[in-house]
Amino acid sequence: MDYIYLDNAATTKAYSECLDEIRKFNEENYFNPSALYKPSVDVFVELNAAREYIKKSLGAPDGDLIFLSGGSEADNTALFCTKKKKGCRVIVGGGEHDAINNSAKQLQEQGYDVVFAPINPDGSINIEEFEKLVTPQTELVSIMHVSNETGAVNDIAKLVRIVKRVNPKAIFHSDGVQAFEKIPVNLRSLGVDLYSISGHKIHGPKGIGALFVKKGVSVKPLIFGGGQEKGYRSGTEPTALVMAFKKAVEINNERFEANISKTSFYIEQLKKELMEKIDNLKIITPENGCGNILTVAFPKVRGEVLLHTLEKYGILCGIGSACSSHHESRFKKLLKLDDDHRDGIIRFSVSEFNTPDEIEKVVEAAKKEWEALYRIGRI
Amino acid sequence: MDYIYLDNAATTKAYSECLDEIRKFNEENYFNPSALYKPSVDVFVELNAAREYIKKSLGAPDGDLIFLSGGSEADNTALFCTKKKKGCRVIVGGGEHDAINNSAKQLQEQGYDVVFAPINPDGSINIEEFEKLVTPQTELVSIMHVSNETGAVNDIAKLVRIVKRVNPKAIFHSDGVQAFEKIPVNLRSLGVDLYSISGHKIHGPKGIGALFVKKGVSVKPLIFGGGQEKGYRSGTEPTALVMAFKKAVEINNERFEANISKTSFYIEQLKKELMEKIDNLKIITPENGCGNILTVAFPKVRGEVLLHTLEKYGILCGIGSACSSHHESRFKKLLKLDDDHRDGIIRFSVSEFNTPDEIEKVVEAAKKEWEALYRIGRI
Repeated sequence: MDYIYLDNAATTKAYSECLDEIRKFNEENYFNPSALYKPSVDVFVELNAAREYIKKSLGAPDGDLIFLSGGSEADNTALFCTKKKKGCRVIVGGGEHDAINNSAKQLQEQGYDVVFAPINPDGSINIEEFEKLVTPQTELVSIMHVSNETGAVNDIAKLVRIVKRVNPKAIFHSDGVQAFEKIPVNLRSLGVDLYSISGHKIHGPKGIGALFVKKGVSVKPLIFGGGQEKGYRSGTEPTALVMAFKKAVEINNERFEANISKTSFYIEQLKKELMEKIDNLKIITPENGCGNILTVAFPKVRGEVLLHTLEKYGILCGIGSACSSHHESRFKKLLKLDDDHRDGIIRFSVSEFNTPDEIEKVVEAAKKEWEALYRIGRI
Repeated sequence: MDYIYLDNAATTKAYSECLDEIRKFNEENYFNPSALYKPSVDVFVELNAAREYIKKSLGAPDGDLIFLSGGSEADNTALFCTKKKKGCRVIVGGGEHDAINNSAKQLQEQGYDVVFAPINPDGSINIEEFEKLVTPQTELVSIMHVSNETGAVNDIAKLVRIVKRVNPKAIFHSDGVQAFEKIPVNLRSLGVDLYSISGHKIHGPKGIGALFVKKGVSVKPLIFGGGQEKGYRSGTEPTALVMAFKKAVEINNERFEANISKTSFYIEQLKKELMEKIDNLKIITPENGCGNILTVAFPKVRGEVLLHTLEKYGILCGIGSACSSHHESRFKKLLKLDDDHRDGIIRFSVSEFNTPDEIEKVVEAAKKEWEALYRIGRI
């Protein structure tokens, strides 16, 4: 079956070129980058060139980019491995990905004063409320750049200023997994100390991500061993995954403007037509969202049921973070939707691989199936 | 240049079939296994079939196989995430891989009573000395199955019995990264509670490994988040890497007997001829080693220098663990070699991709280059 894949915030189809890199670095240049002979040194050099390239693509200031297994490991490293006084205040966003949320709960159990910053109904951080939480005892803050649930973009630069004004030494981490290559990212302007990114959200392979660490910020390893990645993260470097990640960044960089026009056109189209065709549809994604995600709430239906009826048409979409799809979403509660919309959330997330024709089909199918469910009162 | 690759204990060339799997599961069946639609569920089913297949290949008793980023993460999970009383005794082998050794040092800093079990001159655990270290307060033991430095095989079943006799509740972990698919492995007979394996040592890709956890053994996550891998290990499952890992296991299983005959023939050949041609060569690998590793000490030369001269012939070999190749090997000291041999260690590790002709070339080159270095007194 030909699928219409609209769940690109969950994961993406990898670029073919990335898979060529994976083959090359597992079959030809497969040497362990830590070995002493020339072919290994060559691989090590390529690995570091990839590191520099991605750092540059992030507009990163002086610092290190640590390769690791993905966004979750990057987020965990940011929360657990940064230097902070026992019992200090840690602020994380209320709508963070589980990799942050559940790590924060662990810190809470360990005796840290963890507070969760309230979010607005569009999924973004409520800046006023955030400001109230920042104290001189605040040593770590983690706020995602783009919400994986709604596509809302947080004003990280502003949040950083708010924090640093109260405690200049506080460490600010941002989970940039849904932001990198979707919106312009410049770590220098954002002013963050740590930033997480992931390969498989940008048409790279699953199993690779990175954490940027600004110079001067102390980060202990989460994984100890041979001392790879300058001692930050041990384990044989997954060279092929890194090279594929780099290739994905390269292609995204080349197509950045074109892809943004394309995907935001799809999202605008989808939004406009769904609003026309579905009475009382609630748009959750804000106007100034990341441009490739549209989260809506269909009235008086269950998102999960609608999702499965859309599958008949080959349409694949989400009801929010795939990672937490199997347990009741804490996020849903935070959005404070009215009774009619509470259960009807659907997240459409598009990519350059979609076509205008697909968007049309999705609108037609959604209208038809929503009406049918609505009529039989399948709520 | 055509290389003669004899550093398969550091990493291996991936099977082409594994890379086909990687392409398939990143380009076609790229769906997030945690999403709700059918194509995702299909991927999830395949992931679990791979899990069961690898468990079966390990001869594992009831329990879970957790996929994670590699041997180092598996080892770290075993040491840090198992349940144990603060201050209890933890025994690790003196010759363990850095992923165990450095994690053990962390436990020591955290106040655990960590002791390092002495090893024999062939790299294996000294069982008598080991026995003396086991106390009723011993709650965690980690001894590698096969030494990555010498290929010595530890009698894990016996060590497990020694430990469980004194404290039946002690958790026994074995790092099986160099054992799996190189020697027969049956976790049921070994009696271990935890066992680490890695993809890239068996012609699978880098960036994937697994930890077997016997039923009833409590292991907390090292990485928190979406609760994948039954909550043991969060992060989007790297489906393609898992499927490639499974494929590597499949191929290894099919060729197991043939590969063992082939590689142990190479090692025997290499040993016999080097002994004939190099006066006073010291063989470190024991007679009953794993069969694909030969570690020797050339007299009165530096291993690193010999390694680089062999590179002229395209011969790539190691001087011990690649992971610790850039700092003075603690392992070297443990072997207690005499002055003539202390610095002359070379590790040859072969695979099915080698040929008899290559082995001949290595012997000739080693003889020639060792003689030249010896003659000029390059020690």
